[in-house]
Amino acid sequence: MYAGGYTGKVLRVDLTNKTFKEERLPVEVAQDFIGGAGFTVKYLYDEVPADCDPFGPANKLIFAPGPFTGTTVPCASRIAVNARSPLTGAMGVATSGGHFPVEMKRAGYDVIIIEGKAEEPTYLWIKNGEVKFRDAKKLWGLTSADTQLVIKDELHDQNIRICCIGPAGEKLAKIACIVNERRVAGRKGLGAVMGSKNLKAIALRGEGQFTVADREKYDAARKRMLAGMRKSPVLYPEFSRYGTSTTLDLTQALGIYPAKNWTATGVFTPAEKIGGYAIESRSAGKTACSTCPVGCSQMRLAKEGPYAGVFTEGPEYETLYSFGGVCGVDDPDAIIACDRMADELGLDTMSAGVAIAFAMECFERGLLTLADTGGLDLRFGNDKAMTQLLHMIGERQGLGDILADGVKVAAQKIGKGSDKYAMHIKGLELPAYDVRGAKAHGLSLATAFTGADHNKGYAFQEIFGIPVPYPVDRFAYEGKGRLCKWNQDARTAVADSPTMCVFLMDMAVADFMFENTADIMGGATGLEYTPEEVHQVGERINNLARVFNTKAGFTRKDDDLPERLKTEPIADGPSKGELISQKDLDFMLDEYYEARGWTRDGVPTREKLEELRLGYAADALGL
Amino acid sequence: MYAGGYTGKVLRVDLTNKTFKEERLPVEVAQDFIGGAGFTVKYLYDEVPADCDPFGPANKLIFAPGPFTGTTVPCASRIAVNARSPLTGAMGVATSGGHFPVEMKRAGYDVIIIEGKAEEPTYLWIKNGEVKFRDAKKLWGLTSADTQLVIKDELHDQNIRICCIGPAGEKLAKIACIVNERRVAGRKGLGAVMGSKNLKAIALRGEGQFTVADREKYDAARKRMLAGMRKSPVLYPEFSRYGTSTTLDLTQALGIYPAKNWTATGVFTPAEKIGGYAIESRSAGKTACSTCPVGCSQMRLAKEGPYAGVFTEGPEYETLYSFGGVCGVDDPDAIIACDRMADELGLDTMSAGVAIAFAMECFERGLLTLADTGGLDLRFGNDKAMTQLLHMIGERQGLGDILADGVKVAAQKIGKGSDKYAMHIKGLELPAYDVRGAKAHGLSLATAFTGADHNKGYAFQEIFGIPVPYPVDRFAYEGKGRLCKWNQDARTAVADSPTMCVFLMDMAVADFMFENTADIMGGATGLEYTPEEVHQVGERINNLARVFNTKAGFTRKDDDLPERLKTEPIADGPSKGELISQKDLDFMLDEYYEARGWTRDGVPTREKLEELRLGYAADALGL
Repeated sequence: MYAGGYTGKVLRVDLTNKTFKEERLPVEVAQDFIGGAGFTVKYLYDEVPADCDPFGPANKLIFAPGPFTGTTVPCASRIAVNARSPLTGAMGVATSGGHFPVEMKRAGYDVIIIEGKAEEPTYLWIKNGEVKFRDAKKLWGLTSADTQLVIKDELHDQNIRICCIGPAGEKLAKIACIVNERRVAGRKGLGAVMGSKNLKAIALRGEGQFTVADREKYDAARKRMLAGMRKSPVLYPEFSRYGTSTTLDLTQALGIYPAKNWTATGVFTPAEKIGGYAIESRSAGKTACSTCPVGCSQMRLAKEGPYAGVFTEGPEYETLYSFGGVCGVDDPDAIIACDRMADELGLDTMSAGVAIAFAMECFERGLLTLADTGGLDLRFGNDKAMTQLLHMIGERQGLGDILADGVKVAAQKIGKGSDKYAMHIKGLELPAYDVRGAKAHGLSLATAFTGADHNKGYAFQEIFGIPVPYPVDRFAYEGKGRLCKWNQDARTAVADSPTMCVFLMDMAVADFMFENTADIMGGATGLEYTPEEVHQVGERINNLARVFNTKAGFTRKDDDLPERLKTEPIADGPSKGELISQKDLDFMLDEYYEARGWTRDGVPTREKLEELRLGYAADALGL
Repeated sequence: MYAGGYTGKVLRVDLTNKTFKEERLPVEVAQDFIGGAGFTVKYLYDEVPADCDPFGPANKLIFAPGPFTGTTVPCASRIAVNARSPLTGAMGVATSGGHFPVEMKRAGYDVIIIEGKAEEPTYLWIKNGEVKFRDAKKLWGLTSADTQLVIKDELHDQNIRICCIGPAGEKLAKIACIVNERRVAGRKGLGAVMGSKNLKAIALRGEGQFTVADREKYDAARKRMLAGMRKSPVLYPEFSRYGTSTTLDLTQALGIYPAKNWTATGVFTPAEKIGGYAIESRSAGKTACSTCPVGCSQMRLAKEGPYAGVFTEGPEYETLYSFGGVCGVDDPDAIIACDRMADELGLDTMSAGVAIAFAMECFERGLLTLADTGGLDLRFGNDKAMTQLLHMIGERQGLGDILADGVKVAAQKIGKGSDKYAMHIKGLELPAYDVRGAKAHGLSLATAFTGADHNKGYAFQEIFGIPVPYPVDRFAYEGKGRLCKWNQDARTAVADSPTMCVFLMDMAVADFMFENTADIMGGATGLEYTPEEVHQVGERINNLARVFNTKAGFTRKDDDLPERLKTEPIADGPSKGELISQKDLDFMLDEYYEARGWTRDGVPTREKLEELRLGYAADALGL
């Protein structure tokens, strides 16, 4: 039996029938999957057919904070959300921080499972074990910030925390996100899944308090963690003062900051205009997720020109790429304005920016004309066109309607060989690391179960030079298959599942992350793990997700990189000449599958699955 | 001694020295001025030189809710704000509703007096009798909604209520307002006074509870009031369902809805597009001020074209004029978008819209060229140009910089006889009633101590046909001087001072408003009044304000109407041919001054002032 961090309760909400019930969280699920991403993968695997229509009532939307969320463990106010992704067709785990995660735990739930589809626009109001199905017709069309304001007023409770969708999610844009406060579960189109269920928002209020199972153990682990944080040169002062934005200065220095739809990496190098040190001139203070002493969330205010006066929480590094370099834009105020607009519309900044960059390349190559763009001069660097196109995506107008489903679908619609310029993996647009100059990171994007996901196996060894478990050469291929497995499993086990902020686990306590997580788990919940068992939880989750994807039709050929990365070398800069050829990719894949104990085709074996107590998954694959 | 509704405390905040102190509210001030507007007039008169620089440290910004605010009396969550107005040079009382007023009372204060000027951008955080002077440098430039969001997050308290300024107030736009939640103390440029003091916001939190002095009397009066409300055909269903917007349908039917800078009243009649019944198609629900059962605040969402997705609380009737008819615009979505933008920038929608209409007429007459407008095609009806110019006003860019100080100053700067098209009285832009067809209303605008103020003596007899104290002919001049005095004193005494929503006092309990106010005052506070004494409080306040204005240099010649209203008849419709000639105005003024017991020059006499216990004001005038 567990105690402490868990509430032990799963809330199941049926939108079709407007019913709900509470279930007990099985202790073996807690032991094997920890929480957060792990729980959402487990429940989605068990309950959602891998071939379901992502927008159909059979798909489910699953929310899970972690066992540390709501405790005094720092940086644990995070939540994982999962559904079958409409963008990729794969499992779509995304995560968010802020205050909603703690509120959900305090409201009493380790997991909320949203099923079916409401007949009319609805929002959920969850408090004191009750779920109310409230009319959201009047909220349909509202931006994310307005939605939260209006619901708080309507319910006469300013302390409610809300996650919601904006117009983009309502309109089933496959790159729509879920917003809570000014944070998002951004990627994989989960906002569109929410929209497909006619669910505008979930409002929560809770007053639960948490005990810990073993105070002494818990305090010791927590103390060690805080000490680890204090000595991290990345967290203090860098992330605390600049947020993730200084990553741009770093990736530019490494020559892996992608530009102009990945044609100008190392050539277009705007750090002195929009890098972390530069954009500090737009600072409007900072804020923090609940329980976080770092406070990486920088708030910024556009200063000049038509964007003056636009405020945003962000832009994060990824957005300094997606509305910056990859569109050839180096105007900090334009990026700030688009960051805010994307949040309000409920669009993933990353996919939206890459979709615009894709359209820009198509325009420059003549595959899109002024008639197609509605008169927008879509050349790289035209920030005003970028801003207008972003609004068109959110409202699904004109070319925006085509881009709203991501670059993979857009390329199919545009045709003319435009798929060569569609920078995605498994349908998910590429994040802000030119992996031609960071091979393990590239392999991770190719193999992550969610597509080109910067959050599923971040190679901090290559990017930040952190020598855990050992130092690596970012240009080398040898050993990267094993490293990639290590990273993916580590991230899943110690960050996305417990649920801890990735910055902490990568950069502050990297050298004792498994041990630390095991200790806090024991202290908080009473469930015992060895450090190796913690790491294995990550492996278990990645395997179960892989089985889901296999059932959904994914094979080795989907563990791929965009053609451009395999054939066009980086144009200039410190990573000049680098690419990842098909041969090199195959080499890494072979090593990766071997490290994972999978077949050469990338299918988990019965042996591996049984080792992970996933025999049922082997059965499902007919192994 | 009073009890109940009052807290009995005045908070005095010195921004220059970063100090504060609490003072006792004298019982005679309570007895003679009731609260709200009355208190702010009394304190401003006593403490602020009538000839001070409105933007200098000698000016003070005074906030006062009323004795019923925070009690269970419905519709009493209102607040009066006062300062010497930078727009008019006169007393600048404005009022607002929402939740801030109740929070201020619960925080413990009947009056807050802001003095001096902060050295750097500051906001105040008032709780538990403490005032903290917090750094607002990082908030400088933020819109009103963002300011409130960020402060709540920064103080880790979502229940804080905040009033603040937007960019327009920071930039000393003389038509800037003060925003709390999505409501405003809109007129007379009080936002600019706040900006001149480097005061971005006041954040409050309180937990005070209120007792009543005489429960039986209080309950009886409150019950009668609620019964009166229920029988009002204006409140239910009209205002409850449509808000103030249906006033447009009414004023159009009366032929007094002003259009195209007052050149096309009765000609441009857009009710079927933007009237209350039409704009219901944009409904996004409704909300209410604290303790209000009516909930006139309609929320609306722009549906079509470039404005789609913009949400606002409003637009109120006045804004359906200022961004509608007076600019020749009949696009509901454009009006919604401008309403929101004005709130965010912290601009008075009324003055801003009339300023744009003024610029439009100047443009159509060739007094402004495309070079002057920065390329904007400023013809009446161009909603996109209106929207852009509004943004330019808030940010003081180009022509917007000129208009940001209101039409009086703008006409001086533009010259070329443009002052003929500047529709203002005492510098305050005209509200949405073409008073050529409602004579007492016109006289009220001409004589109100704040300038052309729709809220200082509303002639509901002429507009809504409510026969209290007797029915009137809206086109007649005879008797309008007496009626105007009655209205101004009534409004001040039973609405702006206690502080009660004007809709209630005009439309629901008009026939027993003085009696009712006297009863609630007695019940709530223990201070005893006859109905006549209540009315006299209004007279006292209007006289004291008049003395302030006289000291500031105002004379009979300032009790005027724009030339156009005196010389150009209404073009068409049910009020066609009407105007108020100088002769007719003089006739009404003579009667008005006589009714007031003032000289023919409009100066209060010693006799009248002493009758009102304002002998000190007679001394000040050297009478």
